[in-house]
Amino acid sequence: MFQAVEWKGEKIRFLDQTCLPKKELYIETGDYRCVAEAIRKLRIRGAPLIGVAAAYGLCLGALEGLRSKGNLFSFLERVDSDLRNTRPTAVNLFWALDRMREVWLPLCKGGASEADTVALLIREAQTIDRENTLVSERIASLGAGLLEDGDRVLTHCNTGPLACGGWGTALGAILWAVLKEGKKLVVYADETRPLLQGARLTAFELLKNDVPVTLICDNMAGFLMSRGEIAKVIVGADRIALNGDTANKIGTYTVAVLARYHGIPFYVAAPLSTVDSLAETGMDIPIEERSAEEITSFEGVSVAPLGVSVRNPAFDVTPHTLITAFVTEEGIVSPPFKEKFSLLKRKEGKGGKVYRG
Amino acid sequence: MFQAVEWKGEKIRFLDQTCLPKKELYIETGDYRCVAEAIRKLRIRGAPLIGVAAAYGLCLGALEGLRSKGNLFSFLERVDSDLRNTRPTAVNLFWALDRMREVWLPLCKGGASEADTVALLIREAQTIDRENTLVSERIASLGAGLLEDGDRVLTHCNTGPLACGGWGTALGAILWAVLKEGKKLVVYADETRPLLQGARLTAFELLKNDVPVTLICDNMAGFLMSRGEIAKVIVGADRIALNGDTANKIGTYTVAVLARYHGIPFYVAAPLSTVDSLAETGMDIPIEERSAEEITSFEGVSVAPLGVSVRNPAFDVTPHTLITAFVTEEGIVSPPFKEKFSLLKRKEGKGGKVYRG
Repeated sequence: MFQAVEWKGEKIRFLDQTCLPKKELYIETGDYRCVAEAIRKLRIRGAPLIGVAAAYGLCLGALEGLRSKGNLFSFLERVDSDLRNTRPTAVNLFWALDRMREVWLPLCKGGASEADTVALLIREAQTIDRENTLVSERIASLGAGLLEDGDRVLTHCNTGPLACGGWGTALGAILWAVLKEGKKLVVYADETRPLLQGARLTAFELLKNDVPVTLICDNMAGFLMSRGEIAKVIVGADRIALNGDTANKIGTYTVAVLARYHGIPFYVAAPLSTVDSLAETGMDIPIEERSAEEITSFEGVSVAPLGVSVRNPAFDVTPHTLITAFVTEEGIVSPPFKEKFSLLKRKEGKGGKVYRG
Repeated sequence: MFQAVEWKGEKIRFLDQTCLPKKELYIETGDYRCVAEAIRKLRIRGAPLIGVAAAYGLCLGALEGLRSKGNLFSFLERVDSDLRNTRPTAVNLFWALDRMREVWLPLCKGGASEADTVALLIREAQTIDRENTLVSERIASLGAGLLEDGDRVLTHCNTGPLACGGWGTALGAILWAVLKEGKKLVVYADETRPLLQGARLTAFELLKNDVPVTLICDNMAGFLMSRGEIAKVIVGADRIALNGDTANKIGTYTVAVLARYHGIPFYVAAPLSTVDSLAETGMDIPIEERSAEEITSFEGVSVAPLGVSVRNPAFDVTPHTLITAFVTEEGIVSPPFKEKFSLLKRKEGKGGKVYRG
């Protein structure tokens, strides 16, 4: 498995996922701005991993603040804000920065020593990282239970170790079913336009683990379903509203509609940190629109006429009515989702304390 | 408008559509094998245009047969077979070669002079070409009637002048509505993976005609529909079964399912030559699978890990139940399709006489 983001003591080391599968390029940095830029540019991506990286990014900022001998409190406000302003949809970013904020804000206000504050921030980030790995292992093993020997499974985008650390979520379930439980699966990966995370990352992670995978264009899933070649769909999530409406990589909604039309179960695997207590429904989830160039050119080669208009929403929202069940670290969550998520979030103890900045 | 395929007397001149939008490269050839290769490689593409090109290709073969002074009859059999073996799904290829065969077979068998046979073949191909232009004009104008001022219209793949000659079919309707009727439309074009006909050709043709267009990835149409941003869908067809089941570019079926789910009308615009009297249902339509490289690499740059398996169906079949209406040169055809298509095909006078080789 990959160490997509790793704390190296005063620095973090991360895999630049935009270079995969051609090149496994690791970047080591002590600058939180480099982490923010990496999140913005999708060098670091996948909702859970973004959370871990943001937490470590804040630690880098805290260390810089400590060295600069200015006001740590106001410097951390800036670092926090810079990190929050990288990507709007994946809630794990805000969730992790909220957790970090719950550490530094009382300490700064209480007049704790700056060195102690920084040490406690690093400890919190490492806890988030470790918990994230354990949570992904739990999700992978529980999700694997939904997949039967011989199943033909479709996934969209990338939700493996690269996206989450540990095992991953939806792809983690597939990997666990094959590698730990010895099930034989026929795995289809949507290539996932425009940035091809399915082709570049999911196919790559599966083949690295000797799990056979068949790559298709996003527009082929319907054809395969109509021929009975897909039995189950499992995907990840970037933000889940309390009622179960789920924002995930653009194209997920289309797969969910197709699954419903063909009577195929549609599962979402994600940690509870992806459930946003402040979002009642999918209408409350902001959808990031990215640049036209992601669609109009490939590695600098133009594939569309100059001057064409483009829409490039990076995510869509799948309504809860199209979701068979969620796989979380606390178990499989079936409808009705709202009551169960509310309960689980209260149990998680983050409900109501969330700060969005 | 483009002259995508043009008879130049003993030669044909065609636009190499694989080079668009970067380069408008025209190729002139007197060799039918070059035409066959161009069809196979999608230099010449679009169901109606393939029919026209095949007819002219047969003329080039006939001219070569005449020059070689061998047996014209057996040479034409070979040319006919070579052209038929280029692509399996678009029926216009077979339809045009059938029409040509109805000319040369009786002449050869009846002992007509070879020069007369060749002259009559050229005349027939030119008739097919001319009819095709007129038919596409009729389809474009009728299809435009389905589009209202202010409509937000989605199309998939490319069905404009490049695909058909003349105005085109589905895209022809859009062009006609805007250019001839002055309607304002918001046009969305699916990029159409893997070969990006939507990005490379549809966007190009619209912009060439100063018709604004917004390009999206195939997996974004569902998102836009869910937001009420698409009111109508119009696409072309590569082969239509008698019951209305329609083979068209891969991804069409998914758009049709999405349209149904959102209560959006889904129109198919195609000439009657695309209706296959020998196909009772979509089950009778062969689906071409193309090479993995179309998905795993772009202009020689690999976008997927080495050794990944790929499915690459070039078409899918949309069941007639998802189609609101067809736009043909004989008018708008609403359900039930089977009776109406049977009648129209008998009227066309080709039913029962079709030869598939």
